[in-house]
Amino acid sequence: MSTMIRLIAVLGLLYHISLVAETATLNPPQVREAPIKLQDSLPSWNEGVVKDAILAFLKATTEVGGKDYVAPEDRIATFDQDGTLWVEQPQYTKVVFALETHSGKAENEKQILVEAMTNMTVSQFYANVAAWLKKSVHPRFKRPYTQLIYQPMLEVLRLFRQYGYRTYIVSGGGQEFIRVYAQDVYGIPPEQIVGTSGKLKYEWQGDHPVLMKLPEILFIDDKAGKPQDIQLMIGKIPVAAFGNSVGDREMLEWTQSRPGLSLMVLVHHDDAEREYAYGPESKIGTFSEALKTEAEKKGWHIISMKRDWREIFPPANQQPL
Amino acid sequence: MSTMIRLIAVLGLLYHISLVAETATLNPPQVREAPIKLQDSLPSWNEGVVKDAILAFLKATTEVGGKDYVAPEDRIATFDQDGTLWVEQPQYTKVVFALETHSGKAENEKQILVEAMTNMTVSQFYANVAAWLKKSVHPRFKRPYTQLIYQPMLEVLRLFRQYGYRTYIVSGGGQEFIRVYAQDVYGIPPEQIVGTSGKLKYEWQGDHPVLMKLPEILFIDDKAGKPQDIQLMIGKIPVAAFGNSVGDREMLEWTQSRPGLSLMVLVHHDDAEREYAYGPESKIGTFSEALKTEAEKKGWHIISMKRDWREIFPPANQQPL
Repeated sequence: MSTMIRLIAVLGLLYHISLVAETATLNPPQVREAPIKLQDSLPSWNEGVVKDAILAFLKATTEVGGKDYVAPEDRIATFDQDGTLWVEQPQYTKVVFALETHSGKAENEKQILVEAMTNMTVSQFYANVAAWLKKSVHPRFKRPYTQLIYQPMLEVLRLFRQYGYRTYIVSGGGQEFIRVYAQDVYGIPPEQIVGTSGKLKYEWQGDHPVLMKLPEILFIDDKAGKPQDIQLMIGKIPVAAFGNSVGDREMLEWTQSRPGLSLMVLVHHDDAEREYAYGPESKIGTFSEALKTEAEKKGWHIISMKRDWREIFPPANQQPL
Repeated sequence: MSTMIRLIAVLGLLYHISLVAETATLNPPQVREAPIKLQDSLPSWNEGVVKDAILAFLKATTEVGGKDYVAPEDRIATFDQDGTLWVEQPQYTKVVFALETHSGKAENEKQILVEAMTNMTVSQFYANVAAWLKKSVHPRFKRPYTQLIYQPMLEVLRLFRQYGYRTYIVSGGGQEFIRVYAQDVYGIPPEQIVGTSGKLKYEWQGDHPVLMKLPEILFIDDKAGKPQDIQLMIGKIPVAAFGNSVGDREMLEWTQSRPGLSLMVLVHHDDAEREYAYGPESKIGTFSEALKTEAEKKGWHIISMKRDWREIFPPANQQPL
């Protein structure tokens, strides 16, 4: 391109920017992530069937005029958290938090969870979780829990958003627990977190209203609870869903029931060296033979951590998303 | 501006557009409403304190660098529906629907609601509501209920969105009922509807999964339930809230409790000629003396329909938002 054309382009663009600036108050800029080229977009993934399936799905559902095109307002992708976005072994992080912060009077796991997570305001709970996350480290990896997130899945989240999808977490973990760090760690805002929820109680403390966390369950966001809560909180059927255990089965079935193309993916933990290897025998993140059979029969994709992921965790000190 | 500069501008813009087009699949265009100039933006409103307060609030919370600036991701505005966005007299529309469509065996209002709204799939319920809305008309105005929406409030919804706010409905009415028409009528998508909700049950019917509406309440989105459900569904405190009755009091208090500027507005129905006039004596949309006193004391704005609204309803056959 000649220098003159370049100059014209730059001058024109500057003029265009000045026009945009005039209406800046009226149209506040959307927070946008930098564009990613499709072929370079999953750098921590090895080449293979699952990577190809993700890229093909995104292309097919966003290509204007294509038979599998999905309107931007319907682009919903749901992600389980424990074992799908971050480490869930040797124990769910929420439970570790409860074990390390409860008051000491509790006698069993249920009481420990109640003591660590209820009978306080939502604000106090947020402060407790934030303080704990800052100082806690994983027993094996010696890193904060919020760094033990799967780099390949961070790339998937970012790529889906790049293609106009809204990425939701749909987790058996505590909704308010996840909200504390999900924006910083995954780039997912509070209103896109669906998780197990307790009842709240609005009341006044002195001259200001608060929301108290009551020791009563509103809903448990696991198994059949996942499609139920997706309907409650979103009111749309996801186009793509990612999980890793029998707790995600119904969410994937529900996703597949939509008319038109859908993508269902399960993470299989088969990498004892770099992370963990577990399956039907594990109480946490059970990946049963029945689930494997259903996945194969229905065309759900299974990620082998060992085979499909070049990296497991982000480099230490990586900037949050 | 000289012809040469104009030419450069146009050429440069075309070049810029060609660059944008290359990444069009990567960055699907957002659905944007046409820009509105602030001073022309509420044409169905008479000049007055409330109109001024709304415009000043929007300017203050979106002006970059201003002391009351609110980041785009926190721009949440919540709107009650019955009596705030559409007519609630002589009876809530949801109740009219239930009275006109239940099976005939029910003996009281609660049973009628249960029969008309539960023990069916969500899809079946959507179909029932959509069919009823098409044929039903209001006894006094002889227009479909979905046309008996307040034109001045449609302008407020549009203006808030124009300023980067996400507009949520937070209603004592049924969440799934409202979702049937809210996108077409108010421009509000399913995931931004918070309302009274029943429990759902995921199950299989033949070869496809469904969500059954059970005859059990999950939560009632009224009074203290409104801030509780705002936290559950959104996880952020609204910056602005609009209501019209004692059922909205806690939502407005909660909104005002946020640090920084907030806007609280109540619609007062004082126009028997064009709509209805009711207040403390009405069982539907009760506007008590205590609410009036609290509003005056706390600086909440009260819309007088008679004084503040030039028009009440949209012209017949207006295109939906």
